[in-house]
Amino acid sequence: MKLTERGEFQIIEHLKKQSRTIPELICGIGDDCSVARIDDNQELLTTTDLLTEGVHFDLDWSDLHRLGRKAVSVNVSDLAAMGAQPRFLLLSLAIPDNLNVDQLDQFLSGFLQASDVYGAVLAGGDTCRSRGGLTISVSAQGVATKATSIMRNGAEAGDDLFVTGTLGDSALALRHLMAGEKPDPFLLGRHLDPTARLEAGRALAEGGIPTAMIDISDGLLADLEHVLNASGVGAVVDLAAMPLSSAFQRELVSNKDLLDLALSGGEDYELLFTAPPDRQKAISGIADKVGVPITRIGCIDEKRAALRLQGPSGAVELPQQRGYKHFPDTP
Amino acid sequence: MKLTERGEFQIIEHLKKQSRTIPELICGIGDDCSVARIDDNQELLTTTDLLTEGVHFDLDWSDLHRLGRKAVSVNVSDLAAMGAQPRFLLLSLAIPDNLNVDQLDQFLSGFLQASDVYGAVLAGGDTCRSRGGLTISVSAQGVATKATSIMRNGAEAGDDLFVTGTLGDSALALRHLMAGEKPDPFLLGRHLDPTARLEAGRALAEGGIPTAMIDISDGLLADLEHVLNASGVGAVVDLAAMPLSSAFQRELVSNKDLLDLALSGGEDYELLFTAPPDRQKAISGIADKVGVPITRIGCIDEKRAALRLQGPSGAVELPQQRGYKHFPDTP
Repeated sequence: MKLTERGEFQIIEHLKKQSRTIPELICGIGDDCSVARIDDNQELLTTTDLLTEGVHFDLDWSDLHRLGRKAVSVNVSDLAAMGAQPRFLLLSLAIPDNLNVDQLDQFLSGFLQASDVYGAVLAGGDTCRSRGGLTISVSAQGVATKATSIMRNGAEAGDDLFVTGTLGDSALALRHLMAGEKPDPFLLGRHLDPTARLEAGRALAEGGIPTAMIDISDGLLADLEHVLNASGVGAVVDLAAMPLSSAFQRELVSNKDLLDLALSGGEDYELLFTAPPDRQKAISGIADKVGVPITRIGCIDEKRAALRLQGPSGAVELPQQRGYKHFPDTP
Repeated sequence: MKLTERGEFQIIEHLKKQSRTIPELICGIGDDCSVARIDDNQELLTTTDLLTEGVHFDLDWSDLHRLGRKAVSVNVSDLAAMGAQPRFLLLSLAIPDNLNVDQLDQFLSGFLQASDVYGAVLAGGDTCRSRGGLTISVSAQGVATKATSIMRNGAEAGDDLFVTGTLGDSALALRHLMAGEKPDPFLLGRHLDPTARLEAGRALAEGGIPTAMIDISDGLLADLEHVLNASGVGAVVDLAAMPLSSAFQRELVSNKDLLDLALSGGEDYELLFTAPPDRQKAISGIADKVGVPITRIGCIDEKRAALRLQGPSGAVELPQQRGYKHFPDTP
């Protein structure tokens, strides 16, 4: 059986079933981070992301400094989605022979700069030679007080559905890059150097607001499906409410199909969360405080794992492809 | 400047100089594990190792089950070297298209089996597609009580130098494999499926015995140099005392040069530690208890970072190449 016949999420499910667990492991395989009890008051959250050349990045498009920053941000984004403060980072690099010392230094300066911004420090790692392209493996550890870690499985019927920032910018930039076109600088920045919504995630968690939260790395619909599956609920997304940047809207005018990128494009690194309707005012307060828009895009209902889209004139069909797949089902 | 002109250890030193630290980080870049204070009584130890196809392993030589076991053992070995108990593992895989599901399952069964043996559980990870070979990134977290974490920098003049198990077996097996020969099964097992000396490491640490400890992954002399540099002391290694397996000795009879493999071959995953001479009896007791030989192979003196070899008829010159180098100085 080829791996292409078993998708990434099936691999993860398979692994989850086979794995042993222990009481200290509050949350293991299948959320943004693992959560471990370390004492009566604290939880240790850990996440890891692998970035491989030719799959996650292309050195023709990204300078090494921004790639270093991104390697940190995508990990911090997972901690932000659980409301944790990043503390320690580990960095492993498999380095091809054609990478020179200047490029490595640029990568490291970006990595350390972003670590600093998020309040984390580099604590260790590993380096080796690569016979393929550059491979970057980062692991981030964060700490949360016991009450604050937000999982994916707490969404309840009646909750509203919110998202930070804007959607689709990164995927639109990538589409232009792949077509050999020069993207709008704002869109390009969103793709090459995303900002983890750490302040928003922490403020939401500390306010006890989200019932479930996840970061949007696979794409809005794919990540929403993770929340719905974990929580055993359904959702309706209001297409008219989707937050889109001016740069994105300018291009959408002449190509309505681009909305699919905001729904399924991936790599937004925004936070998607659910909260009871009476928290709307507190959420607006946090959005103002951290300077990131937070938009209500739909609601949660009881229809187990059912995801529906609502357009201006009624229900809209779901796109077939809802998020990036590393091992597509159809080769 | 090519990376080949800056070795792995220079990259690590460079990074260490540029990195910020915080008081909670007791030990950062440059030891087997990072050590973080998590509360008044506990320390969190974290290590990570990257294994890349064509550099660290060859799928023509290793089945996937043993590779899965080894991916765990090499990480646990770093925790063992600091006296910590492994608790959580993270596994990231970049998977090439030609790997099939059966192979992946074999890898995972080996990984989970070894995790179990060492008392650790898989807590999370990441999977993606690789356009090169298989890349495995593992991170292991362990816990130690505050008094037990053993660093590299505590060796003192007058200490004796000890090593667990036997040396050179793995490197000798690798030499045979690279020559297209079939290694002795014992040697092959030592290369493809090493055992982390977890029980020995923990017992030594809990007994407060080692002043410094490290696991031998780069080779005895290279790893001893790490201890000497960190501790600011020198060492004399007695070649006649080197612990060698029967399988290794059988081949050594006809080829005296093989001793270099025991000195510099790497991937032994034995523990090298220093201890005051009056701890010899306690050390023998631990060796008996855990069923792993522990051999005195030399002593520590005040000659800062000076490493000397002692043969039956006097001083012996150090080999030029002392351990595996990922980015050799001379291309």
